[in-house]
Amino acid sequence: MDVAKEIAAKAKKVDGPLLKYLEVGKYEKLRRAMRHYPEAGGKRLRPLMAMTVAEAVGKKGNDAVPFGCCLEIIHNFTLVHDDVMDEDPVRRGRPSVHVLYDVPTAIIAGDALFAVGFKVLATTPVDGERMRRLLESVSEAIFLVAEGQQMDIDFESRKDVTVEEYMEMVEKKTAVLFACAAEGGAIIGGGTEDQIQDMYEYARLSGIGFQIWDDVLGLTASEKALGKPVGSDIRNGKRTLIAVHALEELGAKGMRKHAAVLKAFGNPKATDAQVKKVIGLFEGTGSIKHAKDIALDYAAKAKAKLDCLPESKDKQFLGALVDFSVGRES
Amino acid sequence: MDVAKEIAAKAKKVDGPLLKYLEVGKYEKLRRAMRHYPEAGGKRLRPLMAMTVAEAVGKKGNDAVPFGCCLEIIHNFTLVHDDVMDEDPVRRGRPSVHVLYDVPTAIIAGDALFAVGFKVLATTPVDGERMRRLLESVSEAIFLVAEGQQMDIDFESRKDVTVEEYMEMVEKKTAVLFACAAEGGAIIGGGTEDQIQDMYEYARLSGIGFQIWDDVLGLTASEKALGKPVGSDIRNGKRTLIAVHALEELGAKGMRKHAAVLKAFGNPKATDAQVKKVIGLFEGTGSIKHAKDIALDYAAKAKAKLDCLPESKDKQFLGALVDFSVGRES
Repeated sequence: MDVAKEIAAKAKKVDGPLLKYLEVGKYEKLRRAMRHYPEAGGKRLRPLMAMTVAEAVGKKGNDAVPFGCCLEIIHNFTLVHDDVMDEDPVRRGRPSVHVLYDVPTAIIAGDALFAVGFKVLATTPVDGERMRRLLESVSEAIFLVAEGQQMDIDFESRKDVTVEEYMEMVEKKTAVLFACAAEGGAIIGGGTEDQIQDMYEYARLSGIGFQIWDDVLGLTASEKALGKPVGSDIRNGKRTLIAVHALEELGAKGMRKHAAVLKAFGNPKATDAQVKKVIGLFEGTGSIKHAKDIALDYAAKAKAKLDCLPESKDKQFLGALVDFSVGRES
Repeated sequence: MDVAKEIAAKAKKVDGPLLKYLEVGKYEKLRRAMRHYPEAGGKRLRPLMAMTVAEAVGKKGNDAVPFGCCLEIIHNFTLVHDDVMDEDPVRRGRPSVHVLYDVPTAIIAGDALFAVGFKVLATTPVDGERMRRLLESVSEAIFLVAEGQQMDIDFESRKDVTVEEYMEMVEKKTAVLFACAAEGGAIIGGGTEDQIQDMYEYARLSGIGFQIWDDVLGLTASEKALGKPVGSDIRNGKRTLIAVHALEELGAKGMRKHAAVLKAFGNPKATDAQVKKVIGLFEGTGSIKHAKDIALDYAAKAKAKLDCLPESKDKQFLGALVDFSVGRES
């Protein structure tokens, strides 16, 4: 199965309705700010997850389009606000919303996307009680994403982040919205209670694996494959699982010993050679291998959760999606 | 009827469940940031509106508590984000969230309140189809609030705001959430379709009147009654109905003639005497009287919408609430 091609084909099915949902409101400036990221494309992984699961459990893929678009809109709202908080000037090769407009407009555009996400949710073709359940699930997920974002921001000014805390942060910031997508797909598809729970777990586990693998690639893949400089996480001093594990392994003594090398960690002006030395240090502590093993373990556990589904092309795709996200070398 | 006392008594009924709903999440710092404004009190006008209407149409006031708290939480989310955008350092006599913590925490706390608002909405004791309708109504209202806030922000850098634009902004930024509260109360109370629509209109019209009257008081009441300096809208150059009308009345010629006085409009360092001269100018153009008349007209139209309700103490209170908001002199 050519997963990248499948993703692109499925994403195309989402683009039309998604952008249609965002033809909203009377105020053109705000509408343009809201559409800026969604128009720039993206893999549409959350809608794709919801639609594929709904198809796999009950041949209801199309019924999951509004719900999937809701989550994609919510995801984009978090990107707009995250970029304000991180003062990130570029997203998907274009200026961030707060750069193209200003900070207030970006905050409002995020809020407005948030609201429209729920407007779209209300159009999901399910009975009222399942609507209530989707509302509970989506609002809970967004709350957890907010907690995860707060942890991530607070980690920046801390040197003592534990592996446990990192795992909680990643689960909340990244995995929970995928889990909500798969769970909602199962609800919309009319899945059994076991399927609904297993689909949540499938996406939660693969979401965690995906984020950890992404951090690995950030240090090991080529700049061309990444679309950004290798080691930008090093220059930003980002508390990835790799960094957290390495600092734990080194301990106070090791950190003193390697203080000269570690100066590049969190130094935006570090040279490529300095960054390479940090990566070498993190290899020496076994932290890159450790992160890879953890990610692959999550991926395997995620795939095991697919056992609850009947055989189908959609089930195969969900399995292939995990391998596509976790395990590739670039 | 002692409206202020009634409001205080009703607000007390909301405080308990409201703060209980905000005992949420694992991350104490975020939770404290979220609770900072709700804990500082407030009139709880939106829950009070929802509960009173639900009681008036169907004796279901208590059923409207979660919905009312949802709107109060949403209202507080908008305050947190507005204070970031306006760089307002104080709210209800305490430091703003972004001052007490920082801008990223305030953005996230706002987003988290937003999410919790919808979590609370999902607990409303109504059937699934009415739940869907409430979801549509609340999400649409928040979208309109975002549009109104964007207009308000953009007005700051414009000199040519029309009365029509001002009215649209006030309707969206202030009145729509009240309208949603009253409409939702009628839905939860099992009101007829006519009652649901009339309650929406009642609160929309009184919300517009309330905001215009509030702008009048900002220029005419005493500092003690306002709890803030008289004429801060003048110093901030705020495009209130009064200012917009006055500038329209003066025209380019009048503005040139009174340029010396108008220098204080939008000058944060203007003296009390300079501010008084601007207020005098706005009196001279008839703009304060004009705003009062408009506000009273909205109030009268709002009260007429109460005709759809059976006689009750709650109906009386809804009428008295309009007079309390529009028409008082301090």
